[in-house]
Amino acid sequence: MELTFAIEGTDPGTAARAGRIRTDHGEIETPIFMPVGTVGSVKAVTQQQLQSDVNAQIILGNTYHLYLRPGTGVLSKAGGLHRFNGWPRPILTDSGGYQVFSLAENRKITEEGVVFQSHIDGSRHLFSPEGVMDIQRAIGADIIMAFDECPPYPAEYRYVRQSMDLTHRWLDRCIARLADTPDAYGYTQNLFPIVQGGTFADLRKASSEYIASRGAAGNAIGGLSVGEPEEQMYEMCGLCCSFLPADKPRYLMGVGTPWNILESIALGVDMFDCVMPTRNGRNGMLFTTEGVINIRNKKWADDFSPVDPGLTDSPASAYSKAYLRHLFVAGEILGLTLASLQNLTFYLHLVREARVHILAGDFAAWKAAILPRIKQRL
Amino acid sequence: MELTFAIEGTDPGTAARAGRIRTDHGEIETPIFMPVGTVGSVKAVTQQQLQSDVNAQIILGNTYHLYLRPGTGVLSKAGGLHRFNGWPRPILTDSGGYQVFSLAENRKITEEGVVFQSHIDGSRHLFSPEGVMDIQRAIGADIIMAFDECPPYPAEYRYVRQSMDLTHRWLDRCIARLADTPDAYGYTQNLFPIVQGGTFADLRKASSEYIASRGAAGNAIGGLSVGEPEEQMYEMCGLCCSFLPADKPRYLMGVGTPWNILESIALGVDMFDCVMPTRNGRNGMLFTTEGVINIRNKKWADDFSPVDPGLTDSPASAYSKAYLRHLFVAGEILGLTLASLQNLTFYLHLVREARVHILAGDFAAWKAAILPRIKQRL
Ligand SMILES: [Zn+2]
Ligand SMILES: [Zn+2]
Repeated sequence: MELTFAIEGTDPGTAARAGRIRTDHGEIETPIFMPVGTVGSVKAVTQQQLQSDVNAQIILGNTYHLYLRPGTGVLSKAGGLHRFNGWPRPILTDSGGYQVFSLAENRKITEEGVVFQSHIDGSRHLFSPEGVMDIQRAIGADIIMAFDECPPYPAEYRYVRQSMDLTHRWLDRCIARLADTPDAYGYTQNLFPIVQGGTFADLRKASSEYIASRGAAGNAIGGLSVGEPEEQMYEMCGLCCSFLPADKPRYLMGVGTPWNILESIALGVDMFDCVMPTRNGRNGMLFTTEGVINIRNKKWADDFSPVDPGLTDSPASAYSKAYLRHLFVAGEILGLTLASLQNLTFYLHLVREARVHILAGDFAAWKAAILPRIKQRL
Repeated sequence: MELTFAIEGTDPGTAARAGRIRTDHGEIETPIFMPVGTVGSVKAVTQQQLQSDVNAQIILGNTYHLYLRPGTGVLSKAGGLHRFNGWPRPILTDSGGYQVFSLAENRKITEEGVVFQSHIDGSRHLFSPEGVMDIQRAIGADIIMAFDECPPYPAEYRYVRQSMDLTHRWLDRCIARLADTPDAYGYTQNLFPIVQGGTFADLRKASSEYIASRGAAGNAIGGLSVGEPEEQMYEMCGLCCSFLPADKPRYLMGVGTPWNILESIALGVDMFDCVMPTRNGRNGMLFTTEGVINIRNKKWADDFSPVDPGLTDSPASAYSKAYLRHLFVAGEILGLTLASLQNLTFYLHLVREARVHILAGDFAAWKAAILPRIKQRL
């Protein structure tokens, strides 16, 4: 069945909503954070831990990485990514656009698509809207993203406008291709188009309206958190939300810190993804209910309190700060796992709490109360 | 209370026994394999996974590594290693001797002890029998090992005899030091002396008799699996077992492959440790109920059967060989975790099965039947 979205509560003081997405692989309670599983593995964490400890409801896969390794041949034979990686809940795949454009010197954009060189072996490949739809069909995610161009920041108005128009033309090609091809594995794959337009309000409005007109099951806001000031990101995000349909889920791509997420929920965003909890975790940066910790710091060497005393259901909280610091100093893999688990558990805890407070009608007050605490450096 | 050992069954066809060790941190069913937690972490595996998935009953810590990092100061403040790393079951620590002697050029042996340079920062340290007992008191393991010299293979008879005599004198100093110092954390620490003697039968006999005469709660066989032919290892191991008390647990240090372990159980050994399951696992070598796998091999690229179909309770068996291979090829940390979990789960499964068959009286037949299977390369 096609993805559906039901709004179960709205916050009186902000544009925040609590909702429920239904997919063929189960339900997702929103607002939600989606851990990033680049090549079909959320780095350093097992699928069991993701389900039981982190309580992840949906994970993300990267089309660019999965296309290169293991490749669509293996994924098709496996019966799709869910069967390949053993993740039974919903999956979302990006379109590969963001990765391809980050290759900088190693790619060339035309109307047809993007020719790029693999970061692994330098081999040349073409990503076109049609090709990327076919790849995402083979991967078999529940939510698949349109192939878009994400302009850098800063960029000239003229370039951003042309890029946005290209993204819209590519969107129509994605829609046409999906209409011509069946779901690969018997369940529905839902296309989310992506709003672009850089930091220009009129372009964001035009793009949001164009995207809204396509009537997709959900919509995404791309091209933010790419270097622009935080205030500008919030301004553009709020603007997009005001023009995107209220009865469809809104997904803010690649964002961000815990406070970015809370502020964007207040603007009407329902879905988030970011590599920050896992990547920063592997660098020793921990997000906790009490603030931000650099666990490598000497000050934790004999602090035997739990990693996050306010998050007792975090698997990392079975261990002390002193022990986790020791693992990082000694270069132990277990440190990477525990830090990733802590950050993911905290992110999922945060959006779950946000949902509780949206449903209770006191989201704005709750957010104002916890932001100073979770933002502080310990 | 002092460690006790009860024999619960003996195999009619071999010298194998099934027993039960009782410590202040709980019971251990023998024969047992002890995963190696070098710096207080079994590499790439959480303590929860070790308990629930691997079913580890006791883990090992390395005195040399723990002394350097985090150091006895932090461990004392934490209240010992159990409280520091959150492992509630029994722990055994080696004496650091083996690591120190492997430093080769960076150490000097005298009657007093060994002066060595840290592999981390080159700083100079002395390990003496008394000092190592104090360090192991601070770490707080349930079973602590005597400070011994482990001669290389091959070595001259004269050198091995002198080294063995030194090990015996050091043992007496260890015993005297422990008698002079209290348990650090309110539970009993039990010293296991170590038989040496290289590959010389008369020295092994002399050393076993000397060690037996000290009346320890358990005894260890050291200096094997250091490069000698496998047949010689079994010969020396069997010889030592025949002279060590039958009513005390026997621990064969640093051994080995799954088949080494089964053969040594048949000779009367009760306890094993080895880095092989975790180290080889991180290199992509998997031990399974069906044989040995190099998971990086291209042949597994589209093999969607479980990692070990005969070991469904292994956490790795929730995944396919194709997926695990993909994780290794893509350099994902999760691959290291799943391979380590598979190998440890298999090792613990193997000793548990051995115990079942010893108690059933058909250990020899069972061993003969499964050895060809688990040794084969797939
Ligand atoms: Zn991000
Ligand atoms: Zn070994």
